[in-house]
Amino acid sequence: MSQHKPTTSLCRYTDTAIFYRDQNLVEELMPGDSDFVSVMMRHVLGREISRSEARIMHAILIAIMEHGLTPSAIATRSVYMSAPENLQGAVAAGLMAVGSQFVGTIENNARLLAQIVPLEADKQADKAREIVRDHRARKAHIPGFGHHLHKPDDPRAQMLLRMGEEESQARRHLDALKLLSTVVDEEYGRHITINATGATAALLGDMGVPVDLMRGFAVVSRAAGLVAHIAEEQEKPSGRYIWEVVDKAIPFED
Amino acid sequence: MSQHKPTTSLCRYTDTAIFYRDQNLVEELMPGDSDFVSVMMRHVLGREISRSEARIMHAILIAIMEHGLTPSAIATRSVYMSAPENLQGAVAAGLMAVGSQFVGTIENNARLLAQIVPLEADKQADKAREIVRDHRARKAHIPGFGHHLHKPDDPRAQMLLRMGEEESQARRHLDALKLLSTVVDEEYGRHITINATGATAALLGDMGVPVDLMRGFAVVSRAAGLVAHIAEEQEKPSGRYIWEVVDKAIPFED
Amino acid sequence: MSQHKPTTSLCRYTDTAIFYRDQNLVEELMPGDSDFVSVMMRHVLGREISRSEARIMHAILIAIMEHGLTPSAIATRSVYMSAPENLQGAVAAGLMAVGSQFVGTIENNARLLAQIVPLEADKQADKAREIVRDHRARKAHIPGFGHHLHKPDDPRAQMLLRMGEEESQARRHLDALKLLSTVVDEEYGRHITINATGATAALLGDMGVPVDLMRGFAVVSRAAGLVAHIAEEQEKPSGRYIWEVVDKAIPFED
Amino acid sequence: MSQHKPTTSLCRYTDTAIFYRDQNLVEELMPGDSDFVSVMMRHVLGREISRSEARIMHAILIAIMEHGLTPSAIATRSVYMSAPENLQGAVAAGLMAVGSQFVGTIENNARLLAQIVPLEADKQADKAREIVRDHRARKAHIPGFGHHLHKPDDPRAQMLLRMGEEESQARRHLDALKLLSTVVDEEYGRHITINATGATAALLGDMGVPVDLMRGFAVVSRAAGLVAHIAEEQEKPSGRYIWEVVDKAIPFED
Repeated sequence: MSQHKPTTSLCRYTDTAIFYRDQNLVEELMPGDSDFVSVMMRHVLGREISRSEARIMHAILIAIMEHGLTPSAIATRSVYMSAPENLQGAVAAGLMAVGSQFVGTIENNARLLAQIVPLEADKQADKAREIVRDHRARKAHIPGFGHHLHKPDDPRAQMLLRMGEEESQARRHLDALKLLSTVVDEEYGRHITINATGATAALLGDMGVPVDLMRGFAVVSRAAGLVAHIAEEQEKPSGRYIWEVVDKAIPFED
Repeated sequence: MSQHKPTTSLCRYTDTAIFYRDQNLVEELMPGDSDFVSVMMRHVLGREISRSEARIMHAILIAIMEHGLTPSAIATRSVYMSAPENLQGAVAAGLMAVGSQFVGTIENNARLLAQIVPLEADKQADKAREIVRDHRARKAHIPGFGHHLHKPDDPRAQMLLRMGEEESQARRHLDALKLLSTVVDEEYGRHITINATGATAALLGDMGVPVDLMRGFAVVSRAAGLVAHIAEEQEKPSGRYIWEVVDKAIPFED
Repeated sequence: MSQHKPTTSLCRYTDTAIFYRDQNLVEELMPGDSDFVSVMMRHVLGREISRSEARIMHAILIAIMEHGLTPSAIATRSVYMSAPENLQGAVAAGLMAVGSQFVGTIENNARLLAQIVPLEADKQADKAREIVRDHRARKAHIPGFGHHLHKPDDPRAQMLLRMGEEESQARRHLDALKLLSTVVDEEYGRHITINATGATAALLGDMGVPVDLMRGFAVVSRAAGLVAHIAEEQEKPSGRYIWEVVDKAIPFED
Repeated sequence: MSQHKPTTSLCRYTDTAIFYRDQNLVEELMPGDSDFVSVMMRHVLGREISRSEARIMHAILIAIMEHGLTPSAIATRSVYMSAPENLQGAVAAGLMAVGSQFVGTIENNARLLAQIVPLEADKQADKAREIVRDHRARKAHIPGFGHHLHKPDDPRAQMLLRMGEEESQARRHLDALKLLSTVVDEEYGRHITINATGATAALLGDMGVPVDLMRGFAVVSRAAGLVAHIAEEQEKPSGRYIWEVVDKAIPFED
């Protein structure tokens, strides 16, 4: 057997108490004006987050909770129609869509920012330009920029950036994103919006969230949105209609 | 094609704005001291929740977020070890464990409360006794009562009940649960704790959450907890160790 | 810790060999004209299946593999579009739809058959009539009967029943299903087709598959079908189109 | 709306018949000695597979179906214990582990083979050497080679390679794998086994399975194995024991 003996710092419990890290769940975390988001962040990061960070996290989680009948919501509604006894499976199906094509761009953008942030100020612009030119040469989409719908600017991104400027103490990732944005506009010769995933990447980066963990918050937020879709599905079922519409829209062709 | 044409009230968007129901996401929901939990509840229930209800929801979501290396966390860690590129799949795997045996008891308890609540006061005690005796005769576990670990009382349940008494305006489900608890203790001749799922059922019932939707909030809360398990797994991997330990603990037998 | 020490009979391995139950994988199971379905059944049931049973299992797995753009396929395609790096998540999302509303009826029908099979011959018809009348009185759908599309008869069911008659040795469940079918037609005064799930329930029952395991074979079969949907999605992507079509078909309504 | 109008070639149905591609399910695919694996392959690839290819596919699916209490099986058993009403969710949870760390190496190995296969014979060895040296320089594991348990040779791989040599007509990927194996042994100065994922990659490549689809067959095969784990779990539950063992093995550490 492996010599490596992992431990956990997340939770311990006795017959009469439960601790989240070093805090008593019932006596310290639940009562008063407890805040689920701050408790979650403390649990994930292992440190207390500031009032400013809490404001930003609430805004991020609200901003990416919902965007209508997305592939994620379609998957959830389709599964819920087929297995209504299994709400968690329907939510899980929709969460599986929190992948590379949409929310995964948070992490891809964060990886770009991580190349810029550690550099000295005068090297940052060069790196930003190198990144943009490289993407452009490969005709690759720059993660965190552009939105197929929200033009010229993604309003969620605008608001997140503004909150970041008001609230963020250590705004090195935010500054890197703004630098990258300036270079993007210069190199493409037109304005390309920073989108919600780009703004989220910068704000989470400034909070010290590891890049590979970032989509986790999209998972939590989207879970809330998908529960709302199921609530609506319980009142006004659409699953069978989605089936009919899609089946008709995609004809058989030999 | 079916005559039924479903609609959605959850979200609409234009090029420049996104609306969650009738509220402008960017202008109304994100700025200021926005609260993710209140926005989620409004989105799910279609009505503003009160300050008291928000306090209770935060406490519920905090209370069921984490309980250590549960089957749910074990599933998430095992999948994350095998597919770390796919954080959402690891969380989804763990969420699939939010089923009948643990969190599903929220709904099962809520179904009992739903039999008591509509009755006139003098009939409620009879119904509670009938429920308890029926379960006892069938040697069936009464959902919402008992905990294999937390005895004599589940501290989370105690706190949730106290908050419910302080905060809840319409506490018909809470009162029904307390009535049921009294009868449980009488019929069994000993004290059996109301557990966290029982208290949650009563509080969600008093908020008007449909029974079949209740486990949805456990899904959201547990998603947050599972993200913390993945964060820890990134720092201190346990997946391979879990594999070794389990493989060794369950020997082959012909 | 619990006294109960579980063991496994499924697999053991050494540095040089792997055993599925008591058979050497490489020397006994893989070579020659090995049959995946027979190996799977042996692994699940713990006994060798007969040539006749193998024929029936192949037919069942083929019959429920595919039915076009079902909710299951829609979920898989929607997730695959969002997370193409994660094929297994897309299949898993679609498999979550193997629930109560479609495939779960295999088990619900099997539960009816399980009420009939143990009775003496002269009591079986009475029980069948009781079951049908009870469902009719409750205006409940009888699981295993009827199909929203395939009328008057589900052709898959017809073929499965025919194979069952040709091949099945112990056809007690098959006989019970046919008895139930006769009574269904009498009581409703018109012919209602046995559907594919009903026929599957009878054939699996005659093979000794436990009721609670039956949907497992639908999961395996449907997994194959969903891989074909992903193969087609790789060639002719439909995920974005499904999104557009559904988003347009379900308008916002305040 | 997008101009792109996707179609499907997989399935069409009328009131009385269902077609998988151009074949009548009931009349052509189900009866006689129908073979689920060949039907699946035809459905996925859009062409009939040969008798030799069918033999190889059966052997592949059998070989990767089971490997004891893997992370995949642990996830399935943990979820099944928590939500036994939801067998498909438990299988789906386990399938989520069919990711980069184990089965994903099929695709990673296939990507290496795809660099070798198109080259002229005299360039292939150079490319193989370049690949191996590059991995070695980066201290990277070469996908398809090595096994933490099966040494010196993975017996499944040996058998698959032998079947490939007996059966495969177009064995360009198989030859590329053997070339790569020779170079691996030369460069490392010791024998490193071709593992089951490496052999599978070569055989699927010779069958024309697209690289990005390869793990799909592992999903189907593993689904069968996980159903066997659930069957065993129904007879000899281990989920609670796994929980106890893991909870005890991973202590809390502040």
